[in-house]
Amino acid sequence: MLKKCAEIWDEVRREKPLIHCMTNYVTMNDVANIILASGASPAMVDYPDEAGGFACIAQAIYLNLGTLTGEKELAMLEAVKAAADKGIPIIVDPVACGVIPRKAGILKKLLNSGQITGIKGNNAEIKSLAGFDSNAKGVDSLDSGEGVEQACRIVAEKENAVAAATGEIDVVVYQNNVAKVKNGTSLFGSITGAGCMAGGVVAACMGAAPREPWLATITGLCAFNIAGERSIKVSGENPGTFRVLIFDNLFHLRGEDILREARVEISQL
Amino acid sequence: MLKKCAEIWDEVRREKPLIHCMTNYVTMNDVANIILASGASPAMVDYPDEAGGFACIAQAIYLNLGTLTGEKELAMLEAVKAAADKGIPIIVDPVACGVIPRKAGILKKLLNSGQITGIKGNNAEIKSLAGFDSNAKGVDSLDSGEGVEQACRIVAEKENAVAAATGEIDVVVYQNNVAKVKNGTSLFGSITGAGCMAGGVVAACMGAAPREPWLATITGLCAFNIAGERSIKVSGENPGTFRVLIFDNLFHLRGEDILREARVEISQL
Amino acid sequence: MLKKCAEIWDEVRREKPLIHCMTNYVTMNDVANIILASGASPAMVDYPDEAGGFACIAQAIYLNLGTLTGEKELAMLEAVKAAADKGIPIIVDPVACGVIPRKAGILKKLLNSGQITGIKGNNAEIKSLAGFDSNAKGVDSLDSGEGVEQACRIVAEKENAVAAATGEIDVVVYQNNVAKVKNGTSLFGSITGAGCMAGGVVAACMGAAPREPWLATITGLCAFNIAGERSIKVSGENPGTFRVLIFDNLFHLRGEDILREARVEISQL
Repeated sequence: MLKKCAEIWDEVRREKPLIHCMTNYVTMNDVANIILASGASPAMVDYPDEAGGFACIAQAIYLNLGTLTGEKELAMLEAVKAAADKGIPIIVDPVACGVIPRKAGILKKLLNSGQITGIKGNNAEIKSLAGFDSNAKGVDSLDSGEGVEQACRIVAEKENAVAAATGEIDVVVYQNNVAKVKNGTSLFGSITGAGCMAGGVVAACMGAAPREPWLATITGLCAFNIAGERSIKVSGENPGTFRVLIFDNLFHLRGEDILREARVEISQL
Repeated sequence: MLKKCAEIWDEVRREKPLIHCMTNYVTMNDVANIILASGASPAMVDYPDEAGGFACIAQAIYLNLGTLTGEKELAMLEAVKAAADKGIPIIVDPVACGVIPRKAGILKKLLNSGQITGIKGNNAEIKSLAGFDSNAKGVDSLDSGEGVEQACRIVAEKENAVAAATGEIDVVVYQNNVAKVKNGTSLFGSITGAGCMAGGVVAACMGAAPREPWLATITGLCAFNIAGERSIKVSGENPGTFRVLIFDNLFHLRGEDILREARVEISQL
Repeated sequence: MLKKCAEIWDEVRREKPLIHCMTNYVTMNDVANIILASGASPAMVDYPDEAGGFACIAQAIYLNLGTLTGEKELAMLEAVKAAADKGIPIIVDPVACGVIPRKAGILKKLLNSGQITGIKGNNAEIKSLAGFDSNAKGVDSLDSGEGVEQACRIVAEKENAVAAATGEIDVVVYQNNVAKVKNGTSLFGSITGAGCMAGGVVAACMGAAPREPWLATITGLCAFNIAGERSIKVSGENPGTFRVLIFDNLFHLRGEDILREARVEISQL
């Protein structure tokens, strides 16, 4: 299984898929840079009249609900309508959906506009989508991993999508497959945008392996988490320096590194 | 007095207050990262339908008038209306209010919508609010510190708020108390967003010490300025490297460091 | 000729021109920081009611069509209408104009609203404006330099403006003058915003030398490219570290460095 992930990762750099992103203004620059560091090609196109047409020339679409303007909301709906039928993978990051009612409503509209391929949130967001009690502070999860696997199962089944919940351990569920990605570092919690960047890397992998959405999601999370592990070894507990090194380390990461360093536990439902 | 500031600073990391930010797009990422480095939890929520409800679960609100869209203007008004009565501290950064008439008008609306806790601008902005002649180049102050203390007094009295003017020396006035924070470095002028980041750190401190707005403002400015002093010692006159190190240094700063390194002059009106 | 460029570059730091920017949200922070590193003073003012008045106090205006909201589109038109008559240089970066029809339409409106001083795009964008076939992936050019000089000539003549196309070699055409800037590094393609930052530096130079738009454009591209060359010598192929060093290196670059390190080939039409 990790061998396939390693292949997907190298495929990103070979194919340079075009990743159409509509993401929050806070970490848009980080998302663009991390997709470039993955070897893919990001484009932030988020105006209603532009999004539908552009979505059709992309290899994957990343939708992040943070700082969502009215225009961007409309643009997202256009993109989903245009792309879902064509089999272009769409990854949604339901930022703060358990805390802000508007976000939950927009997520519902997106899910009703076409088939979403993957939903990637933090523990609190995915638990909230599954109807569980969850514990969030604003856009951040305070949730332990308890119940997260079951929450992913519920969301994955309900939406017929990959459900991924990031936390100390990242859980990725699709159909009857479960993966637990154990790489990472807690320093991700001390920078903004770690979750958004992880989503961007997942989208890059989906663009290179549209028929393997579960493996592509695992690949993206492994790659980003390993880049984080390598970065903190150099930076120590220094979030500013750590952030800079993530781009360097992801840029140099190859499939063979994933094969050697990934810690993933697989099980079946 | 500095002992109290040291306690407030350590309190931020202990309590991790949720800081609701509506700030300009230029430095939003920096503001989020600096609030995280302070130990608090930032959330950028700036849509009209979201802002009022979200403001009520925050421990402090930071409003920065740079790159202000129509939606964000409405969202700010909603947040002030919702939060002011509940005693949640609100800090306003009146970017370019002396140069761009719309900013001055919006500031007036915000001040009329509820009690603002603190107004923090650069010398030119605060002098302009006090009705003095001021000298700005776009969003930057060209103003010397002359008359700034009196300008702060006028603004503080008129709005019954903390008035803070940042420059070579930062002046913080509230009721009959005046503080002059002498820490800092002129290299802050060679990066964008130093003022916005200082405002975010002040908001983090207000979130941890809502009943001590004057001390919280001094604490935030001291902490940010000391982080700058420590950074330039390592970076030298290199603005790119300097910016990265500010996050590292603020992340490691503790109350005892403020006690040792802060240079604050206190007086009474 | 390079001697004049060296003088223009030093003039930027001496005069600190105010550069009014309306640019995409992805790299707005980078553009502000690179203009500061050039020695000029950036201000991001992009609301319709603010843009016309602000444009009139600026020394140059930089308009970048990425992530263009409806409000920002209107603001750009206001700025051009207000500033073009006053001889304030206006530089337009026609992001993705060959790929997204709305961008091409807005560019046309801008060109019809007043005299644009310079149009700076990547190879694919400038070729598309010249009516040539071009090869773009989203916002990135996949175009070789073939035909770019002729495309610049056509655009320059049609719009009576400086036309600059960036790629492995940057081509700058105005009236009967052609320059080829051979400095740079391919690592610019591994970070987002290299083109936007180059545009910001060009605008800073235009602000210092409004009557020499061709030389100012060459100066800006040389300075930014040399900063890139100096950065990669230290960073190696590490895009995160490379990005940080660009600001440091541009900040220290002086006219004499341009004189020594610029590789520019001049010819006449």
